[in-house]
Amino acid sequence: MSLNRRAILTGSAAALAAPAFLRSASQAEAQTVVPPMDQAPAFYRYKVGDITVTAINDGYGERPLEGFIRNADLADVKKAAEAAFFPKDKVRISFTTLVFQTGGKTVLIDTGNGDSGAPTTGQWMRNFKAAGFDPAKVDTVIISHFHGDHINGVRLKDGTAVFPNAELLVGGTEWDFWMDDTKMNAAPDAMKGAFQNVRRVFSPVAKDVKKYNAGQEVAKGITAVPTYGHTPGHMSFAIASGNDKLMVMSDVTNHPALFVTNPDWSAVFDMDADAARATRRKVLDMLAADKMQVAFYHAPFPATGFIVKDGNRFALVPVQWS
Amino acid sequence: MSLNRRAILTGSAAALAAPAFLRSASQAEAQTVVPPMDQAPAFYRYKVGDITVTAINDGYGERPLEGFIRNADLADVKKAAEAAFFPKDKVRISFTTLVFQTGGKTVLIDTGNGDSGAPTTGQWMRNFKAAGFDPAKVDTVIISHFHGDHINGVRLKDGTAVFPNAELLVGGTEWDFWMDDTKMNAAPDAMKGAFQNVRRVFSPVAKDVKKYNAGQEVAKGITAVPTYGHTPGHMSFAIASGNDKLMVMSDVTNHPALFVTNPDWSAVFDMDADAARATRRKVLDMLAADKMQVAFYHAPFPATGFIVKDGNRFALVPVQWS
Repeated sequence: MSLNRRAILTGSAAALAAPAFLRSASQAEAQTVVPPMDQAPAFYRYKVGDITVTAINDGYGERPLEGFIRNADLADVKKAAEAAFFPKDKVRISFTTLVFQTGGKTVLIDTGNGDSGAPTTGQWMRNFKAAGFDPAKVDTVIISHFHGDHINGVRLKDGTAVFPNAELLVGGTEWDFWMDDTKMNAAPDAMKGAFQNVRRVFSPVAKDVKKYNAGQEVAKGITAVPTYGHTPGHMSFAIASGNDKLMVMSDVTNHPALFVTNPDWSAVFDMDADAARATRRKVLDMLAADKMQVAFYHAPFPATGFIVKDGNRFALVPVQWS
Repeated sequence: MSLNRRAILTGSAAALAAPAFLRSASQAEAQTVVPPMDQAPAFYRYKVGDITVTAINDGYGERPLEGFIRNADLADVKKAAEAAFFPKDKVRISFTTLVFQTGGKTVLIDTGNGDSGAPTTGQWMRNFKAAGFDPAKVDTVIISHFHGDHINGVRLKDGTAVFPNAELLVGGTEWDFWMDDTKMNAAPDAMKGAFQNVRRVFSPVAKDVKKYNAGQEVAKGITAVPTYGHTPGHMSFAIASGNDKLMVMSDVTNHPALFVTNPDWSAVFDMDADAARATRRKVLDMLAADKMQVAFYHAPFPATGFIVKDGNRFALVPVQWS
């Protein structure tokens, strides 16, 4: 038989007679292992100089493509989604936080959805423990910005503090915006829940949080980089150790197949779309020019790779898993 | 501080004064978890209709780029490698086999390097067991072709049969070529080792192996597709269940960043370069036209995605890990 496309695709090749031995019960007593449909724990380790980085996945959420991007025709969005082999008419947004072992400390940037997310999330703690970590032994939790998918892992719905021994570092600009009751009261109703959620998570420890500012080294080798726009005080982080560098981009882009390829598109989550767009182009240009490794929050796991420029657009080249 | 590229890249931003709290021993008694630099087990499950597919990684081998491709200028090869962010002047070739749970049986296609590969290989059994499988309970082992990285997992160097209760299915054309002593004796010295290795692996069970032919359904939903060229009897496999399909491409291409993007390049492993090239274009064209999911043996883990056509070249869009 030659390589016959029609036969393969219709499955009719399978209708060709199978040899008798394939139909015999030659392994009658063999007990077939049928494990549950469990996936391997979703953590991924890599090094940046002396720093050990562990990406920890918290599952994903799905949104309809319609209504997701403010300034693009749905037809164009669908075309981009199809080119990336998305599920039909949906975008699957995954959540990947980072753990750093640096300077003898265990340091997190962001925390996932805790028990407050969609049923397809909430896998963070399982993956974190599978990677060998203990939430009671986390020294420092750094928050990039105050959207629920980044902060809800700090506190369960019943009020439990998930990292009881960690210092909590929050951006000063972000804190001042969200904790301002005048801003909350002036916000549209659709945004009031986000303000209330920030209070749910942080109010019990408001006097203990440590505020950091743009340009500060918030942990050994981890420097806060202001990338305002997505939220008023949104931060990225430059990781440096020896000759190695990594840019933790936080939410400078949402899913790369949409927003790295189309950096001018604005997801509904961008609070200041124009500022977010300007920041996105600036950061992507820099990463491409310097061939600097980048970690995303919302890229498919393990959510790290390199940015290349392609005319007026960009592309993500994922790392080779090893 | 504004987003300052020079400061970030040189690390001098880190030299800005850190706030005092970051320098204090505020977590003096916190015991930092420092797990070994272990990676998560490298298995990845997905469904093709009713069939559960589990990709099992066996590590990787490295080769210098120089001498790897017969018919391309080294400068062009280096350019392709750089575009894919390879390690400098090397290609890292990973090995990913597949396990199918189909028709109540546990079926393997190919077996990895066993204990015969480079020190960066030999991880197959650990990952296989982590995925919940037991080598004694494998029903069927299907071999795509007889290169060592596909067959050495069948038998350890000390002679141990790794899958003692499995039937072993080998392609008839492939068997007849490699087991022909006349061909071995006529082969160049550099190839004699490969002939001898085939005998090491298969001779003890020569009378028990089952030969399959192109077009046969070798297990429920798994049909052998002849893709000759890489070796004389090289086989791929069309997987079909319900409306889902997957093409297990075996070694129709080596690393996709080199050979999907440059389908006319010939790796030194292709035994009939012209036939391999013609097969490669035919298979990639079909996969792109039909948007059919594909599994590679030598793509970065989890080694599955979709092929898109790009002029006279192709590209691999990896699946979104979920």
